[in-house]
Amino acid sequence: MVIFYKFGGNSMEYFVGIDLGGTKICTIIIDKKGTILSRIKTKIGGEDNLDSIVDSIIKTYKDAIKDASLEEKDIISVGMAVPSSVNIETKTLIYAPNFGWKNIQLSKIISEKLKKPLFMDNDANMGIYGEYALGAAKGLKHIYGIFVGTGIGGGYIINDEIVRGSNFTAGEIGHIIVKIDGTKCNCGRKGCLEAIASKVGIVKYIKKMIEKKGEKTMLDKFSPDWKKSVGSSALHKALTNGDKVVKKAIIRSGKAIGIAAANIVNLIGVEGIILGGGVIEELGDFLIPIIKQNLIEYSMSNGADKIKLLKSTLGDNAVALGVAWFSSLEKNKEYLYKG
Amino acid sequence: MVIFYKFGGNSMEYFVGIDLGGTKICTIIIDKKGTILSRIKTKIGGEDNLDSIVDSIIKTYKDAIKDASLEEKDIISVGMAVPSSVNIETKTLIYAPNFGWKNIQLSKIISEKLKKPLFMDNDANMGIYGEYALGAAKGLKHIYGIFVGTGIGGGYIINDEIVRGSNFTAGEIGHIIVKIDGTKCNCGRKGCLEAIASKVGIVKYIKKMIEKKGEKTMLDKFSPDWKKSVGSSALHKALTNGDKVVKKAIIRSGKAIGIAAANIVNLIGVEGIILGGGVIEELGDFLIPIIKQNLIEYSMSNGADKIKLLKSTLGDNAVALGVAWFSSLEKNKEYLYKG
Repeated sequence: MVIFYKFGGNSMEYFVGIDLGGTKICTIIIDKKGTILSRIKTKIGGEDNLDSIVDSIIKTYKDAIKDASLEEKDIISVGMAVPSSVNIETKTLIYAPNFGWKNIQLSKIISEKLKKPLFMDNDANMGIYGEYALGAAKGLKHIYGIFVGTGIGGGYIINDEIVRGSNFTAGEIGHIIVKIDGTKCNCGRKGCLEAIASKVGIVKYIKKMIEKKGEKTMLDKFSPDWKKSVGSSALHKALTNGDKVVKKAIIRSGKAIGIAAANIVNLIGVEGIILGGGVIEELGDFLIPIIKQNLIEYSMSNGADKIKLLKSTLGDNAVALGVAWFSSLEKNKEYLYKG
Repeated sequence: MVIFYKFGGNSMEYFVGIDLGGTKICTIIIDKKGTILSRIKTKIGGEDNLDSIVDSIIKTYKDAIKDASLEEKDIISVGMAVPSSVNIETKTLIYAPNFGWKNIQLSKIISEKLKKPLFMDNDANMGIYGEYALGAAKGLKHIYGIFVGTGIGGGYIINDEIVRGSNFTAGEIGHIIVKIDGTKCNCGRKGCLEAIASKVGIVKYIKKMIEKKGEKTMLDKFSPDWKKSVGSSALHKALTNGDKVVKKAIIRSGKAIGIAAANIVNLIGVEGIILGGGVIEELGDFLIPIIKQNLIEYSMSNGADKIKLLKSTLGDNAVALGVAWFSSLEKNKEYLYKG
């Protein structure tokens, strides 16, 4: 593609997607077909302030262009996904708890530095949009995405449109209550899906079973510091080595995710549920059949067995791809900050 | 209006709305402004078959026309709401558990008998549509309706469109799980909203508290047969007379409804939640503040206190009005069965 462009003159157009996460920035460049030309990933620290994060974003942008052997003039527009609710009409970041940012015009700041039109939206929305436009959910019109990692996020597309909700906060599936007065969640409430089914929820349950029932785990061996922080791969290793308490915790997680998926089907009716995130990537082969079984058991729909339960195919790139693609479309032009 | 029509010639147009419930048929006639000209309500028995119910529908139709001093030729179209999921594209009734009907072309049957174009949809969808078009939710674009009676039903409008879901089963809010492994529901699952918050759920809890904790209730006085069947008005009477176990059951119901409302806000973001049904009509003054408090407590939205929690204003007429109005609109013409 790059070589073709170099000989083909100015007929090719390129788009940038920036995925700003709590601990990393991932920036990609795509062409009009959604093919990735380059990808730059960089870590950011918890104590970085707005200025240093803006600088890091600019650097990944320039590096990605260089890596693709392009020039800045070849870039038509930029999309940026942020871990925050976003008012896409006023182009304002509403609240990003990871950074403590509230009501800032991050699209203006970055757009002016890059001198490019820029679209900004919530990262979970753009992850599900990526899977919808270019990944696992291509061809479906009504889908809900559930992303299971340290926490649980989600996004919703109906009639080919992203549903952002009247306060731009739709997709908070991690905090729907699936067990009134249940396990306490980090958000302060009780019985949230996230408190049971996320990595945090899984670890909390394992700890409790060890403390209260004297159960034993192999995690001490595979990931000695697991009580503070554990990778999904260590959970996978313990599971495949026959760790009973890890198995119980993961089955419990799968049941809760399946019930949440059934709640979505019962409330709004979707054709497909897209599953993604670190826990699904690592444990999907074991988890997805449990999720499927509970989705069917708890759904009122006659056709529950026909609802597509799909694993994300874009993985780590879903968000950056989604936001680059969304911002490249003519019909979304009005949502780009243009200075 | 009627008099004006009689002198005004054929410039006036009228529309019929039929609400077929499990135990009654309610048929109304409206003009182009949504004003009700006549209303006929008739009981139907549990053992009536398809033929006798069709006959009853035709009779209410003719009586309503007579009552409004109109003639059959004045009727432009008919809308009919049924307690069933409906495929509005094939115009087929999918499954009505109350009657045991499956996959029948009820729109064809009625339309051919009445010789009028006819639209058919699910009753909860049409109830929420009625409130949206002519009632409590007028002016809102994104709403979810929760109807609390013997059971719990719902409906969903986003961007001014009814969301029927990919299997035409959206709106089954009564069967979302709010307490994993909780109280058993009549549907066979455990922890459904309906098992806790509906009239059936309230009564079940009162019985349990009496049996297991030796609590006492005034329902024995107000409604001696309450264990089999109780009106919301008897619950209201017991509540206002200081019945502690009834109060606890209703608070528990309100908490579960508020949490379900918060789940809706967290999943899909709506501007308004419309509350209707017999339990809300009778106990709303006590219940709605509890629902509101839990909606705010369990919602992740910063603006949860701004989400409108509205009580149905059309009451019993919501469904018939909704379906008459929907079928009267030019843009919905394609969904009418025309023979």
